[in-house]
Amino acid sequence: MTVSEIDRLIHLLARLPGLGPRSARRAVLQMLKKRDTLMLPLATALQQTAQAVRACTLCGNLDTTEICAVCRDPKRDQSALCVVEDVADLWAIERSGAFKGRYHVLGGTLSALDGRGPAQLNIAALLDRLRPGDDGTSAVHEVILALSATVDGQTTGHYIAERLADSGLAVTRLAHGVPVGGELDYLDDGTLTAALKARRPA
Amino acid sequence: MTVSEIDRLIHLLARLPGLGPRSARRAVLQMLKKRDTLMLPLATALQQTAQAVRACTLCGNLDTTEICAVCRDPKRDQSALCVVEDVADLWAIERSGAFKGRYHVLGGTLSALDGRGPAQLNIAALLDRLRPGDDGTSAVHEVILALSATVDGQTTGHYIAERLADSGLAVTRLAHGVPVGGELDYLDDGTLTAALKARRPA
Repeated sequence: MTVSEIDRLIHLLARLPGLGPRSARRAVLQMLKKRDTLMLPLATALQQTAQAVRACTLCGNLDTTEICAVCRDPKRDQSALCVVEDVADLWAIERSGAFKGRYHVLGGTLSALDGRGPAQLNIAALLDRLRPGDDGTSAVHEVILALSATVDGQTTGHYIAERLADSGLAVTRLAHGVPVGGELDYLDDGTLTAALKARRPA
Repeated sequence: MTVSEIDRLIHLLARLPGLGPRSARRAVLQMLKKRDTLMLPLATALQQTAQAVRACTLCGNLDTTEICAVCRDPKRDQSALCVVEDVADLWAIERSGAFKGRYHVLGGTLSALDGRGPAQLNIAALLDRLRPGDDGTSAVHEVILALSATVDGQTTGHYIAERLADSGLAVTRLAHGVPVGGELDYLDDGTLTAALKARRPA
């Protein structure tokens, strides 16, 4: 194709995760058929979101306000702080509805390969949040490390747990085991071993 | 998620072919990390393309000019006209570099199920283009029906071939056969039968 506007749009769309050049082409053709109901609203939504949305200065969640809706909500449990790698993980836990405390977004994991050390993550701010106030106590009693069960995720968890060893806070991590709905013969050995070791009375 | 800007953006993105709600969420998070290099340029490109690009009044191809670059190119063969369903098919044939004539985009196929008759397609304009001039001859000598090998595509091809039966034009269609690089034992019976019937000297 020689139309430079379309080429440029396809090139940009193909950089989105889940879209390659082929599906980007299909998306552009579909959008050109729905200019007023899809293409222009999408352009506006992209611009508005890029301008309005920012990271919460407390936890790193995304919102249009300086302090995000989760941090502002007085009904949320102040005593539990859930540490996640990324905003996507925070959204996933929120969708589950299983956690009513607050969050802290690290912005990634420690990674020797990618050269990410503690300074590149939001760890200093986390330790700041957990430091006891003037009365010697912290509002937070438990820190839940909700990190990926990958080498980098577990390394990050160990690092944070070590930094908090003398804080007197309860530091927990997510359970390993069989995913709900998962079939045993499709599971990897590591998960099966973990699930067996952590077995509980039926 | 409760941030309405993000929700709206995810909702719009999820309507693109190839993206569902899950990948739309991932795309939004990735874009929010690359606002200046991806998100805002994408918004601008969408807007510019929506405003600048239109269908060629001759053939239906997409371009920023009233007559598209293919129709304007004097080096292209005026005697061959390739009829395609959609602009995506035109692009695919252009990428192959195997055709140097001009195109006519129908804008779909006839479909009894979807209620698309000849009036819904760009067929009247095609017959107009092929009508002989004042000197009794048409610039076009061959009409190539490059339509999908589906029931609807073939029905459309038959319909056009019938309308052109008395025109004296050569009307051809794409060959059926084994796709280049295709393995025989993965091919359907219909394709194998067609490839056998149309066998050629080796």
